[in-house]
Amino acid sequence: MRYIETFKDGDRVSDIFLVKNKTLAMTKTGKEYENLILQDKTGALEGKIWDLTSGGIGEYDVLDYIDVHGLVTSFNGTLQLKIERLRKVSEGEYDPSDYLPVSRYDIGEMYSEFLGYMNRIENVFIKKLLESFFVEDEEIIKKFKSISAAKSIHHGFVGGLLEHSLGVTRLAGIFADTYEILNKDLLVATAMLHDIGKIKEFSPFPENDYTDDGNLLGHIVIGSEMVGEKIKNINNFPEKLSSQIKHCILSHHGELAYGSPKKPALVEAVALSMADNLDAKMETIKELFDSKENAQEWMGYNRLFESNMKRTTI
Amino acid sequence: MRYIETFKDGDRVSDIFLVKNKTLAMTKTGKEYENLILQDKTGALEGKIWDLTSGGIGEYDVLDYIDVHGLVTSFNGTLQLKIERLRKVSEGEYDPSDYLPVSRYDIGEMYSEFLGYMNRIENVFIKKLLESFFVEDEEIIKKFKSISAAKSIHHGFVGGLLEHSLGVTRLAGIFADTYEILNKDLLVATAMLHDIGKIKEFSPFPENDYTDDGNLLGHIVIGSEMVGEKIKNINNFPEKLSSQIKHCILSHHGELAYGSPKKPALVEAVALSMADNLDAKMETIKELFDSKENAQEWMGYNRLFESNMKRTTI
Amino acid sequence: MRYIETFKDGDRVSDIFLVKNKTLAMTKTGKEYENLILQDKTGALEGKIWDLTSGGIGEYDVLDYIDVHGLVTSFNGTLQLKIERLRKVSEGEYDPSDYLPVSRYDIGEMYSEFLGYMNRIENVFIKKLLESFFVEDEEIIKKFKSISAAKSIHHGFVGGLLEHSLGVTRLAGIFADTYEILNKDLLVATAMLHDIGKIKEFSPFPENDYTDDGNLLGHIVIGSEMVGEKIKNINNFPEKLSSQIKHCILSHHGELAYGSPKKPALVEAVALSMADNLDAKMETIKELFDSKENAQEWMGYNRLFESNMKRTTI
Amino acid sequence: MRYIETFKDGDRVSDIFLVKNKTLAMTKTGKEYENLILQDKTGALEGKIWDLTSGGIGEYDVLDYIDVHGLVTSFNGTLQLKIERLRKVSEGEYDPSDYLPVSRYDIGEMYSEFLGYMNRIENVFIKKLLESFFVEDEEIIKKFKSISAAKSIHHGFVGGLLEHSLGVTRLAGIFADTYEILNKDLLVATAMLHDIGKIKEFSPFPENDYTDDGNLLGHIVIGSEMVGEKIKNINNFPEKLSSQIKHCILSHHGELAYGSPKKPALVEAVALSMADNLDAKMETIKELFDSKENAQEWMGYNRLFESNMKRTTI
Amino acid sequence: MRYIETFKDGDRVSDIFLVKNKTLAMTKTGKEYENLILQDKTGALEGKIWDLTSGGIGEYDVLDYIDVHGLVTSFNGTLQLKIERLRKVSEGEYDPSDYLPVSRYDIGEMYSEFLGYMNRIENVFIKKLLESFFVEDEEIIKKFKSISAAKSIHHGFVGGLLEHSLGVTRLAGIFADTYEILNKDLLVATAMLHDIGKIKEFSPFPENDYTDDGNLLGHIVIGSEMVGEKIKNINNFPEKLSSQIKHCILSHHGELAYGSPKKPALVEAVALSMADNLDAKMETIKELFDSKENAQEWMGYNRLFESNMKRTTI
Amino acid sequence: MRYIETFKDGDRVSDIFLVKNKTLAMTKTGKEYENLILQDKTGALEGKIWDLTSGGIGEYDVLDYIDVHGLVTSFNGTLQLKIERLRKVSEGEYDPSDYLPVSRYDIGEMYSEFLGYMNRIENVFIKKLLESFFVEDEEIIKKFKSISAAKSIHHGFVGGLLEHSLGVTRLAGIFADTYEILNKDLLVATAMLHDIGKIKEFSPFPENDYTDDGNLLGHIVIGSEMVGEKIKNINNFPEKLSSQIKHCILSHHGELAYGSPKKPALVEAVALSMADNLDAKMETIKELFDSKENAQEWMGYNRLFESNMKRTTI
Repeated sequence: MRYIETFKDGDRVSDIFLVKNKTLAMTKTGKEYENLILQDKTGALEGKIWDLTSGGIGEYDVLDYIDVHGLVTSFNGTLQLKIERLRKVSEGEYDPSDYLPVSRYDIGEMYSEFLGYMNRIENVFIKKLLESFFVEDEEIIKKFKSISAAKSIHHGFVGGLLEHSLGVTRLAGIFADTYEILNKDLLVATAMLHDIGKIKEFSPFPENDYTDDGNLLGHIVIGSEMVGEKIKNINNFPEKLSSQIKHCILSHHGELAYGSPKKPALVEAVALSMADNLDAKMETIKELFDSKENAQEWMGYNRLFESNMKRTTI
Repeated sequence: MRYIETFKDGDRVSDIFLVKNKTLAMTKTGKEYENLILQDKTGALEGKIWDLTSGGIGEYDVLDYIDVHGLVTSFNGTLQLKIERLRKVSEGEYDPSDYLPVSRYDIGEMYSEFLGYMNRIENVFIKKLLESFFVEDEEIIKKFKSISAAKSIHHGFVGGLLEHSLGVTRLAGIFADTYEILNKDLLVATAMLHDIGKIKEFSPFPENDYTDDGNLLGHIVIGSEMVGEKIKNINNFPEKLSSQIKHCILSHHGELAYGSPKKPALVEAVALSMADNLDAKMETIKELFDSKENAQEWMGYNRLFESNMKRTTI
Repeated sequence: MRYIETFKDGDRVSDIFLVKNKTLAMTKTGKEYENLILQDKTGALEGKIWDLTSGGIGEYDVLDYIDVHGLVTSFNGTLQLKIERLRKVSEGEYDPSDYLPVSRYDIGEMYSEFLGYMNRIENVFIKKLLESFFVEDEEIIKKFKSISAAKSIHHGFVGGLLEHSLGVTRLAGIFADTYEILNKDLLVATAMLHDIGKIKEFSPFPENDYTDDGNLLGHIVIGSEMVGEKIKNINNFPEKLSSQIKHCILSHHGELAYGSPKKPALVEAVALSMADNLDAKMETIKELFDSKENAQEWMGYNRLFESNMKRTTI
Repeated sequence: MRYIETFKDGDRVSDIFLVKNKTLAMTKTGKEYENLILQDKTGALEGKIWDLTSGGIGEYDVLDYIDVHGLVTSFNGTLQLKIERLRKVSEGEYDPSDYLPVSRYDIGEMYSEFLGYMNRIENVFIKKLLESFFVEDEEIIKKFKSISAAKSIHHGFVGGLLEHSLGVTRLAGIFADTYEILNKDLLVATAMLHDIGKIKEFSPFPENDYTDDGNLLGHIVIGSEMVGEKIKNINNFPEKLSSQIKHCILSHHGELAYGSPKKPALVEAVALSMADNLDAKMETIKELFDSKENAQEWMGYNRLFESNMKRTTI
Repeated sequence: MRYIETFKDGDRVSDIFLVKNKTLAMTKTGKEYENLILQDKTGALEGKIWDLTSGGIGEYDVLDYIDVHGLVTSFNGTLQLKIERLRKVSEGEYDPSDYLPVSRYDIGEMYSEFLGYMNRIENVFIKKLLESFFVEDEEIIKKFKSISAAKSIHHGFVGGLLEHSLGVTRLAGIFADTYEILNKDLLVATAMLHDIGKIKEFSPFPENDYTDDGNLLGHIVIGSEMVGEKIKNINNFPEKLSSQIKHCILSHHGELAYGSPKKPALVEAVALSMADNLDAKMETIKELFDSKENAQEWMGYNRLFESNMKRTTI
Repeated sequence: MRYIETFKDGDRVSDIFLVKNKTLAMTKTGKEYENLILQDKTGALEGKIWDLTSGGIGEYDVLDYIDVHGLVTSFNGTLQLKIERLRKVSEGEYDPSDYLPVSRYDIGEMYSEFLGYMNRIENVFIKKLLESFFVEDEEIIKKFKSISAAKSIHHGFVGGLLEHSLGVTRLAGIFADTYEILNKDLLVATAMLHDIGKIKEFSPFPENDYTDDGNLLGHIVIGSEMVGEKIKNINNFPEKLSSQIKHCILSHHGELAYGSPKKPALVEAVALSMADNLDAKMETIKELFDSKENAQEWMGYNRLFESNMKRTTI
């Protein structure tokens, strides 16, 4: 397919795009027309349907994929697409990864590595808990593999939650190997589960926006509750262990002001919050380095880091 | 009974007290003896058992009630009790309210008024939810009526949680009558439930201390989870309503920095956090006024109010 | 009259509007013309007077009401009014409430209810003080009934100060009935007076902007001083009472950082600051609900509440 | 006289002291006695009157000066005075400066220099205002010359307010000579008046404690109100000038969080807050240097300066 | 020369300007042209070179001075210059002060006064240190006289660093004369040196932007290190004196949060930070008064002063 | 030797101790005696020399090691040592590790591992810089191996700086292996050097207190300057590299408020600050776990972690 970022004035287009938005509008002369936002992974483009009787109009909706035929024109210096004909397509006709930002790593491979950490857990209760999420619950597995870790900031792409959870889990493993006061089972398990609430905080792609529960409860509390529910189905799960696992999830933002209702009170909770922070910061800077606007050595003031960030030059 | 605050040097004592603490100690000459802290609602007194072979020794434990016989003596200006004989007593032999701080209001009457608010709820789901707590669950009802609302600050007495919950509920009712944008059912119900997690955050009197879950999870998250569990047993409970109720509980401290994982996002959540704050502040000042150290007009600098507090004089 | 929000391109207009602004401008060809902003309660519209010799030009000023005749035209997608003729009108010819935002409640009724609170005060000195403001001082009464409680935020309309003062007074009455430690006379009286300084902080409508004293002294200090002056004319007004009334006014923002030079040191001052806060927050959310941009369930991030605010849906 | 700091165990004392405190106490055997705190400028000493029938007992009160006869004894490592006889003395019999901390500068000379600044003011209204305080109002003059500028921190001695006001005024004069954008009359006048409210915020020595108004209103608001009252008695005092003077007083703490209800909005208000800050800091460090506990080069962590403070060594 | 602020549509221009920026652009028809920003001290103007074969094109660079010939035209209400011919000029052909903001004071006179302070220093080591900067190091002297004290805020002009350093030094002298606890030599010397690191923090005019070291190390640390290097070349320079001088430089921002790695621990360091603050604030307000947008009495909300700033009117 | 923690009333002592403090005192009867604090690694003990003519008195000083003979007695419940005879001993007679807290790891082994990281550096300039510290400078090596990383908090023992530097270096290596955007040479090298300034911030054991430079400049600035000096001796050391290394050291506390004059602007600086933080937190908790007062599961409120810290129990 030809991507949006390659379009020029005068091009004829005949390709499938994702409909990000759709509104009915009216010209000054009182004629109705339809306004669309089409999207692929390289960008977005406004589309206009002037003739509302043309083929396929009215049979698609926002977040559908449509096959459009039309002409690229320039208006006030911005390109738009004059759509002549369109058709809603079915799931097999397109490859979603052409339309959405995706992890640069293979999701299957990441998940294998992720499960490897689970398999090395020695505590049987902790292992059972992890399996109830990552082996037995197909719905959770599917969402966990595809959902984003964020609406915008870091890991905001398909597979982002898995990639970030794996990153934090790797650090957890390393930290536990480095500092003997850390209980590896507890730290690794809570690293794997720390953001599990995000599968209910965000709607799936292509929407990728906060759900009601995301806004009202937040992934921290949702995740703690999900863990509590799974534990109820495991016989004789030790109560103290349950509290300590939930505590690590609840406190993983490290500070009350960052939305954790409790400060870390266990050494594993302290370590987890730092692993989460490190993985998030590294990915944030990576995305900063990758973004086209920041091609120069000094990338300008960054609000998160409160500094004019610079590429290292050695 | 004669209360501890009336004891004088030389008094003979023969009464029942609560054992708050108990340790084995040794004199400089190497002789073992037992050190107790006895308590009633007027104060605490150190007790010494010099003769560990005397009657009843070793058959009681911390937080038991014991009938002691002994002599009050003064040592370094402080009174202590030389215990000669003691006996662990059974539950019917004493009145707990002699040994613990209690609400000045009748618990039965408060609970009736509290249920009255529940009965005026119109939304059937909300009403069922409240009934599942306050009518059907005997264990919760018992704890809810007796537990403290705090370890020390405000409402730190038997019945304190009920008294405070009733206070906030009264305000909720008034606020909803005053501001038409407030949904009365939602506001009153979440006022009734806002601190329900405290029945698991604190151990019952006489211990009245943070439980493990209290320290690791906190009453805000515990309460939200308790509500979630009750809702699961109510058929067709609307999901949106569930999220909004939990949100009000989660956000009732008003600020992330005060331990709420979410800021209030609903007008009822805003109102609830203010009702909670007002009732807590009024009771805190009342307890300040009542405390013996603050008999004067100017009561000295108070850290919570960041001010030298003054009794109003008109 | 026809309101501005109903105007369309090509309409002929012949109605009275408020002149919000007026400047002399020059075309590229060097010809002078006049630029006006016309306003009614539904919006604002730019007006152009191309022919400065036409009738009525030059005889009116900013904040006058004028009767204009002209044609609505569209320029760059925005409507404007080509004014052909105008006439400055006199006070009886228009109804100010067509031109300014006004309280939705009747000002007379609100004031009656307000005076009712005053009449139930038992302390004679406090009552005399209130009467000196709200019964005897015609100028204060007139301003108090009409002025806004804010430039923009909450209660920013004609009668806003009265509506807000009444709201806080109602809460004060309720709080005093609920918590026996509160002195009702003191709390109700300072609720009535707490924002009295605003009649000097803001200029009257239609200007409704900060005065010099508003900017340099603020309504908190102005109000305290106004109370001090009235008290001087009341024989034997108790000095301690005077200080306590002023203190409640000075501390009613609750925090130094919010412009109160003293934190509340009296229980009534604590309660007053919370009543003020509650009434302000409820009205702010109400205005948020009413504004057209926020028609949806989720109303977007709100800086004051630091949250994406949501309409309750039950 | 012999000062308290020179007393030794066994000394016989026969001198005049200030009574700082006085309470009736009882021995364990039930005998009443009187407990005094005697004070001179070098320290304080506990006194005991065992024989309440001895001469002069009962005829004096707290803050009186008494001539005592007695014996210095050591109890638990602390000296105390066994008082055998005492007599309340009259105002001429002692020199208050022996009993209270006083400015090291001559109060008359300081006041002369202070008035010199007033006399060089050119604006007639400002000059009249200053004269109404510092020339015409005997009561204000007397208090202004003697009162402390603080309860403890800096300038906490007789003449302290005058010394600090003069210090700030000197800086104001210098700043105005250095920066031409500053209006010298306004800056110097508000420097002279900035802390005038302290004569009502603190009670006179020897008590030197916060008054009710001090606690409830604070010297900033009191001072602004005092200026407002004086201005009312000056014909045609320009309103704008009045607001600007009051503003400088109200904003002289520089930050809302430091109790100023307004941040400085005039360049003179900015300069005044910095002059006040500088004079206060310099005197605070001077008192730190002078205090006996800080004889060493490194004086230990100081909370105000958030640093381990060091004497300069060159 | 004719300054940019006097240009009108249709003017023919033939003058020398500084090239602030230069980019190659393309018309919609695919034709390349060059876009320049020309600057003099009165403003900036966009220039267009449509014919890239015209004389002088390509032989100049950003921050060069060029002699341009062209026509002023108006496009979308903004003036621009259609450049027909240009020539890069040499250093003697223009007066840099026509193109850059400069101190309103004579640099030579300021420097003389500055050296006067140095000459009155009594401590020989301190004097030698100052001479090593301000007498012996030609490169430092040249930069110190010309560089700006800031990129934008206060003293952002040629000679700004000298003007500000002199201002702070004057205050230092005055403070030391006023408060006897201050060591004048130390205070005056560190006032002279406090911002010396800025000659490496900013690139020279016309660029006047942060250098790499400016961004990575900051003038505070750079300055301390520069002082350390000079001291190494002075025989027997007392180590304690060296530490104290560096400390004053390091702590002169007064607060950790403002980038000082240490809070002031010496009385001279406290005084220096206040002198720096005062001189910066006075100049900031002066520039506010001078700016054309702020011609009115109330100058609008200013973020630095957190207030709507007002011109004093007496 | 017998350690202080094993002493009992009545023991005769004849062993070598470190003299931590020494003062001359006087009995109530006017007789002079000497007061010592003796220390070994298990605790401290007060010593009294009543007979100042006894052997060895006067020939030793604070921080000397002395061989004392005397009797342990109990006074007011505290043990003290009545010293009869003492002798200052020479360096070979005792093992310092008996008297001071030391790292539980072998210093030689730690240093070998540390140098291993250096040897794997590829950039020749960075490697030369590290060698100039850790291979060529004997004085630095000696101090670096023995000095503490803190006065009290974490790593406050002999070898503490090396142990912490190694811990951070290990993390740096791991982080660089995990995140490809990190430059391993820069990150590892600045991890090795980040706290190098501490060898001048603290005096050597047994004193282990802040030096003048430690208080006035701090280890962050001292370290940056030390690096700058070493770099000057390396031919052609790239200026940009120098700035980036210094920046990492300067910003390693992560926040201005923690004493870093710059926030991290390089990805390696971000990672370094997090490695430093993690190693410090892990060691702090380890020391908390090890301390005797914290033997219980819940260890009480900890100010650094703002939480009641709990031992993990699985």
